[in-house]
Amino acid sequence: MNFKTRLLASVIGMLVAAPAVAAPKNIIYMIGDGMGPTYTTAYRYFKDDPATKVVEPTVFDSILVGMAHTYPDDDTIVTDSAAGATALSTGTKSYNGAIAVDTHKAHLETMLEVAKKKGKTTALVATSQINHATPASFASHNESRRNYDEIANDYVDNKIAGKLPVDLMLGGGTKYFIREDRNLVNEFKEAGYQYVDDLSKLDTLNKVPAIGLFAEVGLPFAIDEEPQRLTKMTQTALSLLENQNDKGFFLMVEGSQIDWCGHANDIACAMREMDDFAESIKLAKAFVDSNPDTILVVTADHSTGGLTLGANGQYRWERDVIANVKGSAGEIAKALVDAKDVKATWKALTGLEYDSATELNVKEALSQGPKALSTVVKETISDASFTGWTTSGHTAIDVPVFAHGMGKERFIGSQNNTKIADKLIEFIKK
Amino acid sequence: MNFKTRLLASVIGMLVAAPAVAAPKNIIYMIGDGMGPTYTTAYRYFKDDPATKVVEPTVFDSILVGMAHTYPDDDTIVTDSAAGATALSTGTKSYNGAIAVDTHKAHLETMLEVAKKKGKTTALVATSQINHATPASFASHNESRRNYDEIANDYVDNKIAGKLPVDLMLGGGTKYFIREDRNLVNEFKEAGYQYVDDLSKLDTLNKVPAIGLFAEVGLPFAIDEEPQRLTKMTQTALSLLENQNDKGFFLMVEGSQIDWCGHANDIACAMREMDDFAESIKLAKAFVDSNPDTILVVTADHSTGGLTLGANGQYRWERDVIANVKGSAGEIAKALVDAKDVKATWKALTGLEYDSATELNVKEALSQGPKALSTVVKETISDASFTGWTTSGHTAIDVPVFAHGMGKERFIGSQNNTKIADKLIEFIKK
Repeated sequence: MNFKTRLLASVIGMLVAAPAVAAPKNIIYMIGDGMGPTYTTAYRYFKDDPATKVVEPTVFDSILVGMAHTYPDDDTIVTDSAAGATALSTGTKSYNGAIAVDTHKAHLETMLEVAKKKGKTTALVATSQINHATPASFASHNESRRNYDEIANDYVDNKIAGKLPVDLMLGGGTKYFIREDRNLVNEFKEAGYQYVDDLSKLDTLNKVPAIGLFAEVGLPFAIDEEPQRLTKMTQTALSLLENQNDKGFFLMVEGSQIDWCGHANDIACAMREMDDFAESIKLAKAFVDSNPDTILVVTADHSTGGLTLGANGQYRWERDVIANVKGSAGEIAKALVDAKDVKATWKALTGLEYDSATELNVKEALSQGPKALSTVVKETISDASFTGWTTSGHTAIDVPVFAHGMGKERFIGSQNNTKIADKLIEFIKK
Repeated sequence: MNFKTRLLASVIGMLVAAPAVAAPKNIIYMIGDGMGPTYTTAYRYFKDDPATKVVEPTVFDSILVGMAHTYPDDDTIVTDSAAGATALSTGTKSYNGAIAVDTHKAHLETMLEVAKKKGKTTALVATSQINHATPASFASHNESRRNYDEIANDYVDNKIAGKLPVDLMLGGGTKYFIREDRNLVNEFKEAGYQYVDDLSKLDTLNKVPAIGLFAEVGLPFAIDEEPQRLTKMTQTALSLLENQNDKGFFLMVEGSQIDWCGHANDIACAMREMDDFAESIKLAKAFVDSNPDTILVVTADHSTGGLTLGANGQYRWERDVIANVKGSAGEIAKALVDAKDVKATWKALTGLEYDSATELNVKEALSQGPKALSTVVKETISDASFTGWTTSGHTAIDVPVFAHGMGKERFIGSQNNTKIADKLIEFIKK
């Protein structure tokens, strides 16, 4: 066939197959907390197979469509995760700290609430406590992200058409859900929710509604315990949601701790969180491929730490240094405090030489405690890998936007973060 | 009309109106040297009108389509401008320092050379010397970017079908073109080129071939002298190229000194370079709108300085601080050395208070000379604006890709920088 014939054939196919105004039935929204463009770039080089000449593209590279502007409605252009998530969940910018409320503290309807009203199944998955700022901004309303108990209460009390807002929750947070004043887990159970509290029992969940809380607060870092805990939770969520409701589902999955490693300026920690998030995205992408009435949108709320891939005048960034690190700086510091042989422990866990300068730094920090030691670990790894950081907080750089599946072309280009929410809400309302 | 009818009508229109495989006749390729995604983000906030609640989008926001991977074919993933430009001009990655040669130092055909062979008019515009790494990689071949004289010679000697490779050159570099051993300007004149050496006489150029060299090496920084010198050169180039050749033209415009301000970690300098580049892009975009057989592609070779918009734990980036700065750090330092009233000069040129800590720093630096003083100026501005830097060199972060006009959809998504060249060369060959 020549070009015209092929085009005509493909268009006729579209006209026959597609409804006039198509909107995806299922929405998968994935948020890499703190995942600015340096993180997605770094991840490609981190995952590079050194045996090949090319640098292999990642799942992010296969679905990039644009970038988003993250500034909040506040007296700064640098957002926090609450204002970021509020923009991404409601389409309205608000002040830093706001959980789905506007600058007058009035409630903003979230896309999860719209989905629930439309009869879709709703789900939140995170590696943080499930009532942390990002998931919270989808299913609760609060003037402050710090009101963790009130936010957790909302997951029972914030009724949508007489029902609890979220049908499936997977993450951490028993501390906030099983309290002296109120046991929300029991309330979920009374409302018919299955409950598990151990990641190894994830498979015992066989229907929604369900809630799984796998840590008192956030789950351990991917680098320290289960490297694919988000991937596993995402797998379970997609299995439970697939074909379960004719009206489809809304699922938000957060790679919560990319941000936490960024705040800590811990590059090895951040890359393993990226890996768990990337593997989760692969599952979601495969789900879209076998369920074409689904859209997958992936973005970030902001970038964290002022991460850069180059430091101190050197034209280098050394992925091997980072790949050799065996734990978060905090866990390595603890191990060094407990170590009989500090040198051997250092070499085993950081993969770096224990030279005389390092020995001096480690010995001084050992006398100051685990926090100082953790700083030495992080800074030595950053220096050796030529990783740059400029802050323990967030930065204002635009974040990447990824989309795959039905309607993905709507997300091409540079856009305000609120427009991502607007487009998804438009889909959900159809 | 309903959706199906409209789609059918538009497709029939396409089939009737467009040739089977349409390629733009004119190519405008704009490279912001060092312009990583932090620069385009920063520029939006820098240009924000504080009187309005929203942050106004920039020209970059109106044409973003993707991002590009910049790693060279070298023992590092951080590219220099030569390898970056070689990838962007030839579609082949090479080693840092390479000017349109591969890792075996064999010549690589550039898209400008292809365009010249196809009978198009060719043009290079830059604020650096016109034989600096980026323009050089389009019209010359050399094993080292540092061989400035040899590269300049190539602009006369590198004959394409018996003709000089570049029909129009605007930039700096008299030092390399008018030498004791060879006067290339005279050789250009003998070959029929118009020549000007003063930016104020730009308008006297009224046809191609022509060459304008407006500085011994690079032009002065936008913040220090003519804030729109690239915009003016771009305007002249577009006027001279429009409707001049039935076969169209290839024009490369480089915002060369974004990179130089980045190397200096001078944010005020960088934002004014961004402004000159953005205004140049606006002209090119308008040209595309009135000449629809044109494609505009804008990208960067890499990011410079490890620039971030946030520092020292503060969730802030203060555009007002930067907007108030009146010169590059180097020029402010010179003025301070010459100043009778250091305090008044400091306040007038930096817009910042001359507090006791600043006074201490300035006085100490004054005794050490202009370079130390320049560092104090830059660091004080960075601290006050919460601008972060991690290196005097380059970083590996992916760079934004922008496209407008015929064929722009080819550039959507995440791509290797070589693929940008491949697609443009494909257009030029058609």
